[in-house]
Amino acid sequence: MNRALSIRSNRNRSGSQNKRASGGGGSAFSFSSLRGNIQPELSRKLYRLIKAENNLISAHEAAGRERISIATQLSEWGEHTGDDAISDISDKVGVVLSEMGELEDGYAHDLDDSRAMLKAIRNTERSVQPSRDNKNKIADEIQRLKVKEPQSTKIVVLEQELVRAEAENLVAEAQLTNITRQKLRDAYEAEFTATIERAEKQILLAKHGRRLLQLLDDNPVVPGDLRAEYPHAQQARQILNDAEDDLRDWQPQHDEFGFAAPQEQQPVSRVSTGEQPTKDVKGKGKMVDNDENMSMARTDSRTEGGSPLRGDDRTVEGSVGQGETTL
Amino acid sequence: MNRALSIRSNRNRSGSQNKRASGGGGSAFSFSSLRGNIQPELSRKLYRLIKAENNLISAHEAAGRERISIATQLSEWGEHTGDDAISDISDKVGVVLSEMGELEDGYAHDLDDSRAMLKAIRNTERSVQPSRDNKNKIADEIQRLKVKEPQSTKIVVLEQELVRAEAENLVAEAQLTNITRQKLRDAYEAEFTATIERAEKQILLAKHGRRLLQLLDDNPVVPGDLRAEYPHAQQARQILNDAEDDLRDWQPQHDEFGFAAPQEQQPVSRVSTGEQPTKDVKGKGKMVDNDENMSMARTDSRTEGGSPLRGDDRTVEGSVGQGETTL
Repeated sequence: MNRALSIRSNRNRSGSQNKRASGGGGSAFSFSSLRGNIQPELSRKLYRLIKAENNLISAHEAAGRERISIATQLSEWGEHTGDDAISDISDKVGVVLSEMGELEDGYAHDLDDSRAMLKAIRNTERSVQPSRDNKNKIADEIQRLKVKEPQSTKIVVLEQELVRAEAENLVAEAQLTNITRQKLRDAYEAEFTATIERAEKQILLAKHGRRLLQLLDDNPVVPGDLRAEYPHAQQARQILNDAEDDLRDWQPQHDEFGFAAPQEQQPVSRVSTGEQPTKDVKGKGKMVDNDENMSMARTDSRTEGGSPLRGDDRTVEGSVGQGETTL
Repeated sequence: MNRALSIRSNRNRSGSQNKRASGGGGSAFSFSSLRGNIQPELSRKLYRLIKAENNLISAHEAAGRERISIATQLSEWGEHTGDDAISDISDKVGVVLSEMGELEDGYAHDLDDSRAMLKAIRNTERSVQPSRDNKNKIADEIQRLKVKEPQSTKIVVLEQELVRAEAENLVAEAQLTNITRQKLRDAYEAEFTATIERAEKQILLAKHGRRLLQLLDDNPVVPGDLRAEYPHAQQARQILNDAEDDLRDWQPQHDEFGFAAPQEQQPVSRVSTGEQPTKDVKGKGKMVDNDENMSMARTDSRTEGGSPLRGDDRTVEGSVGQGETTL
């Protein structure tokens, strides 16, 4: 991170009056800024942030969609080359890419859930604004009367009103701080959790994708020589099975950065045990000689535990995934 | 993966004549389809795929850009709340999000590199097409003459030409298969490697992000109560330092799915040792009591090895990162 440790620092240098100007809507007149302005002052910044979140979500959705489209195109291109090896590998790499695209799309949906939590803050901000305004308006009115008509009986009535308004506002402000802190934590906890899930699953897929690429013999041929027959169809299919198993068995890791009531010193000092961010890729030592096993493993819709390979997997994983929390 | 093990299967069911029609540009007339059609038949599919890759890259660029914008907005919103805890945490979560956005942008660039490799295949396809066409044209012409003017002396000349054209095409086809296999592997190897890098780094960031959120006390207050003073500024800063260290120390893992000359059976059976996909997040057992150390660690532009914490890190990591390959 080649930046300062605050993202705000650049703006701070230009002075606070500058900031206040832009916060008050100092930008040029436009329809979009008009629409922003109908938000009460208090919720305006978050209103815009939530709109920007929408763009972020759309971008990830688009990335997922394009990835899936490319996956299909890659497979069809490969078939079209008339080269068995390229045809098979491109098709199976296509399956992996397509699954990566689905994960990207799922990520977009998770971001949308996080966005909904920020909306709860914005809605509270919006509802607290009239309470603040009312309190201030009464205080101003009292001030005005004290100067203009110091003997007015309205002052006493207004002072009673002010006490009530202050009490009401006290509740509103407590609601605001409670909702803001809780939902801010929830929203970004959800976002970081979704980021980790997408990342861990995409790592699994990418590693199996690399295994597939290894099956493509790219030794150059001289003109007139024929390529040797493609011998890896079975292995390629097994790799997809492994990938499928890995994705199905994936579990969120209960790391120690997860939620707990924060206590002084503890959050940093307690993260002292080793845990593994992502699970290991399966398929290690998994190539079995037994043809019977292989053909069982290859059936596309085999049932949970139906393959003799599965028990084997768990053993491999159990010894490697040292930090995995059992649920 | 709740799909068939081929991404092609759906289309195959609809029959091959269907496929041929769409492959031949059966879509409605439009400028974009016209432009696609000026590509020779051989390179048309890849030409379209490469265009789709462009959309994918743009989507990831947009995601990165929006993420960085949101990060700044989050920080500014937090400052605006007037709540010290929210202000500090939102600013530092903003730094983490912003770095995630930078990674997304870097990923887009890596995808662009991968796309350039696919272009090398497309260019070869494009240049091989005339060679195929020429060979076929001469063969057709010989066939036509043999029927119409079987005594023509042109036939002998054309047959010599055909032998030359076939030799030329033999070279072209060898070039095509060599380039196609090599660049296909390279392109997707690069893409999967980039996917893993983005994922591993984003996992590091997300985990530190979750540590930051833990510092935000979200216990509800009752109306009129004041929030306790925010005590975690130093810890929050340390978390950013940890994140920065982790990103700087990140190395690609030389896993065994990486490139090696593929040999029968080996690619699957040799992946039998345990390695860790991602490194562990730092900052474990790292909270030191020594204030001197802390303040050194907090200087933004400290030099490599300048902080006493760094040696400590390496020890922690050395014992945890069991699968890390030393370079």
